Amino acid sequence: MLGNFIYSNPTKLYFGEDSLNYLNEELPKYGKNVQLVYGGGSIKKNGIYDKVVEILKANNKEIIEDGGIMPNPTVEKLYEGVKLAREGNADLILAVGGGSCCDYAKAVSVSVHCKEDPWEKYYMKFEDVDAGTEIIPVGCVLTMVGTGSEMNGGAVITNHDSKLKIGHIFGDRVFPKFSILNPAFTFSLPKYQMVAGFYDILNHITEQYFSGEDDSTSDYIMEGLMRSLIHSSRIAVKDPENYEARSNIMWTATWALNTLVAMGKSTDWMVHMLGQAVGAYTDATHGMTLAAVSLPYYRHIMPYGLAKFRRFAENVWDISTQGKTEEEIAGEGLDAMEAWMKELGLIMNLKKLGVTEDMMDGLVKATLIMEGGYKVLSQEDVLKILKKSM
Amino acid sequence: MLGNFIYSNPTKLYFGEDSLNYLNEELPKYGKNVQLVYGGGSIKKNGIYDKVVEILKANNKEIIEDGGIMPNPTVEKLYEGVKLAREGNADLILAVGGGSCCDYAKAVSVSVHCKEDPWEKYYMKFEDVDAGTEIIPVGCVLTMVGTGSEMNGGAVITNHDSKLKIGHIFGDRVFPKFSILNPAFTFSLPKYQMVAGFYDILNHITEQYFSGEDDSTSDYIMEGLMRSLIHSSRIAVKDPENYEARSNIMWTATWALNTLVAMGKSTDWMVHMLGQAVGAYTDATHGMTLAAVSLPYYRHIMPYGLAKFRRFAENVWDISTQGKTEEEIAGEGLDAMEAWMKELGLIMNLKKLGVTEDMMDGLVKATLIMEGGYKVLSQEDVLKILKKSM
Repeated sequence: MLGNFIYSNPTKLYFGEDSLNYLNEELPKYGKNVQLVYGGGSIKKNGIYDKVVEILKANNKEIIEDGGIMPNPTVEKLYEGVKLAREGNADLILAVGGGSCCDYAKAVSVSVHCKEDPWEKYYMKFEDVDAGTEIIPVGCVLTMVGTGSEMNGGAVITNHDSKLKIGHIFGDRVFPKFSILNPAFTFSLPKYQMVAGFYDILNHITEQYFSGEDDSTSDYIMEGLMRSLIHSSRIAVKDPENYEARSNIMWTATWALNTLVAMGKSTDWMVHMLGQAVGAYTDATHGMTLAAVSLPYYRHIMPYGLAKFRRFAENVWDISTQGKTEEEIAGEGLDAMEAWMKELGLIMNLKKLGVTEDMMDGLVKATLIMEGGYKVLSQEDVLKILKKSM
Repeated sequence: MLGNFIYSNPTKLYFGEDSLNYLNEELPKYGKNVQLVYGGGSIKKNGIYDKVVEILKANNKEIIEDGGIMPNPTVEKLYEGVKLAREGNADLILAVGGGSCCDYAKAVSVSVHCKEDPWEKYYMKFEDVDAGTEIIPVGCVLTMVGTGSEMNGGAVITNHDSKLKIGHIFGDRVFPKFSILNPAFTFSLPKYQMVAGFYDILNHITEQYFSGEDDSTSDYIMEGLMRSLIHSSRIAVKDPENYEARSNIMWTATWALNTLVAMGKSTDWMVHMLGQAVGAYTDATHGMTLAAVSLPYYRHIMPYGLAKFRRFAENVWDISTQGKTEEEIAGEGLDAMEAWMKELGLIMNLKKLGVTEDMMDGLVKATLIMEGGYKVLSQEDVLKILKKSM
């Protein structure tokens, strides 16, 4: 059953090979000063930076340079970005990159006119943006897929001092005003980041799928999205420049986490809580932290949500059911997922991501416990899952 | 592969049992004069009219009464509605009903400040709304599901004089600003209209599914939507007040035709062209006109799109494939669809909808030919399909 909800998704998407041109249609809607947010410089190598700057200049914009966004944007970087936006009177924040850049841009956008410390307000106290607080508009040019940040109000920030990596879900005022999605911009991404992004997409879906006993249209939509992702990822991992596969993956990533499939249903998000704790300790790539803890987690909770794991096996992985018990069918579904993860070349071991035994206690404490999954984990459960992930 | 596209869906949805209350949040955004659009009076019997009027009065609105919208809104009614809106200086058009009321409201909204005859401009010449033309905002309170009109820019208008029933797809400026979806409001609908709406939903999906040879995420999403619809409709037809089933159906209807699943892909829409010709001649219920022509149409084109019909059989209807030819599998999929249609109690015969042999030539001429399906129909094809539907 679908519970009560409000759905509003105001982000405008420009999708396809010519989509960057539409930046020319969007820029005139905003003021002169554009804060240009990007990562470690790969966009300078592949020419996207130059193309964007050219369009900004053609539209008479002043550029506030804000590069060097790290894969897990830090609270210190957030403070720097806020300072830049204030000094430069930013009228638009334009993120060019992946989810880290989009997340960071949104975190800056709600912090520029925030009178309190944004980390305290949004991430420690989980408060909403005050109704009267001006939000700097955000636009995205996506060069990496996975997070869905291009069409939602989420922003994850990491505090290395307190070893916390926390996501805040802001409302629809904080969604990007527009996002530009060109699948060809994702071709040059190294394989490690590419497949980590693919797993991030699948996990966004499973976090929302493995929850609830009721019948919900959202689950059927998610089965479709997962089937498409699995199909296209198998093609893309062999042939990264396959436009058909990359375009489908880009679109799947957006719909996996733009709020649609969570409407009216309960969700889990426990794999993300485990993965984010690991990320805060190791700075490892987000999708890989999820990949490393997922199978131990899902095998741990499977007995508590058997019917859904059986459905996952049948409807997503086409596991035949004849002559098998429910446990066998459900287990074969997770085995099929494991085989696919290996095929992609995901890192499925925490040690390889830099986790050491002496971090265990800290990781357990840093893992927020969510209550929407098939089993509410105890600290013992968390420790057991982390150990199995080593 | 996903072709290039722009996606923007600005409609805000309030979904659930308490959703009508949110009318109190929306009304203050608009001026004093609200044109209240509704159908034949069923909302007066079931109490929804009184509830809406109470909220309008509590918000100090002047009501411009505009009832009596017919199942296939006519061009004459459109002119009347435009006159009412001009005389009453409508600030908001509030449609309370099904797709006919929503469609009509949108057609009025773009015609009030249109200097030309709206039928000529939008329906005969298929012109866009001029950039400078003011559009009266539209809101919807949905009491019947099927058309998806609550979250798109489409509006179908019928001209009985020229025997034409034509849909115009307006851009996102014409999407309803908000729609209120309470599944319980659909409980009291007579079974005939209810199941016609269910078939309209399925057909919206198949019109977009049966087109193209490429691999597209949209097809996977559509398979999910169809599976959910089939499952829930079987429950609802036996137990119309099953909230779970009706809520899933309501949500499926919205996503079947709110532009998402058409993004980046080719579409067909030939069943709607056939059905709309029948509607213009007989004024029969829209969903039933589609039901009557669908199987003859799909069986006619199946050989030209065999791979997709086979996929439909496997992924939507769970047809086993072992030891069967592709034609057999594909055919069994359509047989399964036929069995489901009979289970719902759909009218699958044009004679029962009032079509007579002497209408045949006129129907063939009134049927617009679309080119996105697996076979571009000749007039002989159209005649053959219509005759098989008798």
